[in-house]
Amino acid sequence: MADPLKLGIAGLGTVGAGVLDLLAQRGGALASNAGRGVAISGVSARDKNKKRAVDISSFQWFDDPVALARCDDIDVFVELIGGEEGAAKASVEAALKAGKHVVTANKALLAYHGLALARLADENGVALNFEAAVAGGIPAIKTIRESLLANNISRVYGILNGTCNYILTRMQKQGRNFDEVLREAQDAGYAEADPSFDIDGHDTAHKLTLLTTLAFGVEASIDTIYVEGIRSISLADIVAADELGYRIKLLGIALKTGSGIEQRVHPTMVPKNTAIAEVDGVMNCVAFDSDFAGDVMLIGPGAGARPTASSVLSDILDIARGTIMPPFGRATNSLKAYERARMHAHEGGYYIALSVFDRPGAFAAIAGRMAEQDISLESIVQHRPRAALPGLDARTDDGSPLPVVMITHETTEAAIRAALRIIEKEGNVNEPPRMIRIEKM
Amino acid sequence: MADPLKLGIAGLGTVGAGVLDLLAQRGGALASNAGRGVAISGVSARDKNKKRAVDISSFQWFDDPVALARCDDIDVFVELIGGEEGAAKASVEAALKAGKHVVTANKALLAYHGLALARLADENGVALNFEAAVAGGIPAIKTIRESLLANNISRVYGILNGTCNYILTRMQKQGRNFDEVLREAQDAGYAEADPSFDIDGHDTAHKLTLLTTLAFGVEASIDTIYVEGIRSISLADIVAADELGYRIKLLGIALKTGSGIEQRVHPTMVPKNTAIAEVDGVMNCVAFDSDFAGDVMLIGPGAGARPTASSVLSDILDIARGTIMPPFGRATNSLKAYERARMHAHEGGYYIALSVFDRPGAFAAIAGRMAEQDISLESIVQHRPRAALPGLDARTDDGSPLPVVMITHETTEAAIRAALRIIEKEGNVNEPPRMIRIEKM
Repeated sequence: MADPLKLGIAGLGTVGAGVLDLLAQRGGALASNAGRGVAISGVSARDKNKKRAVDISSFQWFDDPVALARCDDIDVFVELIGGEEGAAKASVEAALKAGKHVVTANKALLAYHGLALARLADENGVALNFEAAVAGGIPAIKTIRESLLANNISRVYGILNGTCNYILTRMQKQGRNFDEVLREAQDAGYAEADPSFDIDGHDTAHKLTLLTTLAFGVEASIDTIYVEGIRSISLADIVAADELGYRIKLLGIALKTGSGIEQRVHPTMVPKNTAIAEVDGVMNCVAFDSDFAGDVMLIGPGAGARPTASSVLSDILDIARGTIMPPFGRATNSLKAYERARMHAHEGGYYIALSVFDRPGAFAAIAGRMAEQDISLESIVQHRPRAALPGLDARTDDGSPLPVVMITHETTEAAIRAALRIIEKEGNVNEPPRMIRIEKM
Repeated sequence: MADPLKLGIAGLGTVGAGVLDLLAQRGGALASNAGRGVAISGVSARDKNKKRAVDISSFQWFDDPVALARCDDIDVFVELIGGEEGAAKASVEAALKAGKHVVTANKALLAYHGLALARLADENGVALNFEAAVAGGIPAIKTIRESLLANNISRVYGILNGTCNYILTRMQKQGRNFDEVLREAQDAGYAEADPSFDIDGHDTAHKLTLLTTLAFGVEASIDTIYVEGIRSISLADIVAADELGYRIKLLGIALKTGSGIEQRVHPTMVPKNTAIAEVDGVMNCVAFDSDFAGDVMLIGPGAGARPTASSVLSDILDIARGTIMPPFGRATNSLKAYERARMHAHEGGYYIALSVFDRPGAFAAIAGRMAEQDISLESIVQHRPRAALPGLDARTDDGSPLPVVMITHETTEAAIRAALRIIEKEGNVNEPPRMIRIEKM
């Protein structure tokens, strides 16, 4: 059997501890399964003396992760520091330049610098593996890079953020408001004290950038993604969606269209009788529409020390067995320029929620504005909401606002925006119209 | 770039044609993506002159697949002949002995001879890849062999037969009887003229054998699997399941228990609000409960020329890039002996359907028999079935049989069988009791 593959692990937080734990438990079995052992040569973290659940005294300690990355005694640099700049970026660059393979769980680093780092990996003939950076324990990267390699993929999408999915699931299952559930998620450790990175959709956008590059072979940039978070989703929307046969999920979606690639992150209505509608709580999913394999969906835990550690190990074992793929599945220099489809050209159905003053002619005016934009309606719901659910405006019969919900047939983003702009301006509604895009499954 | 990988393809039926089509469309792209081209050197099939959608005139023709398997001019033998004996077995053995890599979609061959063939592959240092043999386009084999390699898997299960899932889905969605839907499936080409291999669960058992060996690292045998098909499932069961919050799916399940591995194929009740309950029609799924990655489920098309071709290509590209794994993820000689858990020791909840004579004391006697076996009931449904659905016995109020449906709390197979045996013997029911196992998700 070959010499063991020597690892340098930088970052000993939750994920780092998970990786050490997994290696301690499975080291022997992995050696026999992969045909080559895996051994830790050195570790680096901010504080050597911090109390840790795992014993690190037998590993060589490095105060500086860059020094660990360059150390002659390692074959693979495992970056679990996090963050798109600073120590993570410096040490990954140093490792690649020193001809070390890199395994990282750092989606932010890759979303911003993935293409440059992938070129560096190509130039040095080393791996840059990042299965753990997208959807935790789900083998999404391997599936695109290897299993679906012979396919043309037309759409890649998924539930990529566990915090958002946890919040939306609790709102739906328990009939509770966003703020209340967010606070609870923060108390339970499922949401950060400053939750904006997750709930405003940025985390999903990071992951979508990587999936887009992989799925379409293009130089995707995070800056061109349309991003909308879940703060605007009310319990009323969730209840109305349910009545209309939908669930609301925060999806990241990249879609090939005639005018380029649409890349968008937004709350999305998905039909209730589908697998994705049942991906609940902190579970994630990643789905591919491909021309030969067909529609493939992978579901699993999107985060957490143990699922992430499993994916990190999978990447390490690929290197142990000598599988060195270009980071994005093909030579980085062969990735094509990214052609962006304008969001205004997006085509699909829409859910529209209005708070309409209950007076003669109000609804006729609204319907007229929709018709002017060639928007046809599939269904309209205008009734007193279920009394049992708190937080919903109920009809008062005194001319005050009444909630009206509509589902449109397929139309364009431009048409919807034009119609809603005029409807808001005309004064038949007492608050800005809300809309949620419907995704075909 | 290295010389192209030379393929010999035996079997030019539906799947073979799909592989030729995919190679013709993507040959160039694959060469640049995988870092090595793929070229067809020779083909073999039963009839050289059969009219085919793909032009095979540029490939060397072999009447005998064994001669193709041994031909000096090929690196990989792609076996798409089918069947567990005969030409498929002879040619795969010949290829492995001649030091050729083998890619096959042949689940029957592997279910019966997989261990012997894997040893032959190990001895000759070549690959024996079979992604297409389990669940068509779903990357189940790669996920176990590579992505989850560092995990202990405690359960592997799935919807592994599209014919059965199509029939059960149609029965449920359209409120129709088994026989009627089977005939329709036969007419539509989703079921064979002799459907027993699919609907009696044997096809699922073949695939489960391979999943069990891979997931648990044991020498699983198809002969030790408990197999029950879907012929006994009535529309009444499907309707009752729906009312109780379940869907009925034919699952193949392998589970580690304290007394060994349970391997079973049977109609199974799964809770409605789960992703697996929404895997409908000819779609398949494969799921893993693992200790680090957690619960991972893969959904996709379970059969068909194009999904199968995609998986065959994925296997070929692994070889092109030099990834040669032992067939079952670890050295075949290190697979452990398979310890079988007895089906009588199976623990779980049960759905029980009885046709009870509507007379005083009948139900009390039945409840007493359940209690004697320490079986406690979670719910009992005894009412006139929905009139709109055909094929259900309706209550007649004249002492004639009345359908009664029960869901038990967790109990054992032995207890259920003992109770049902006595209930049947005592004569309060007018037909043998039916039971369907409930699987926890």
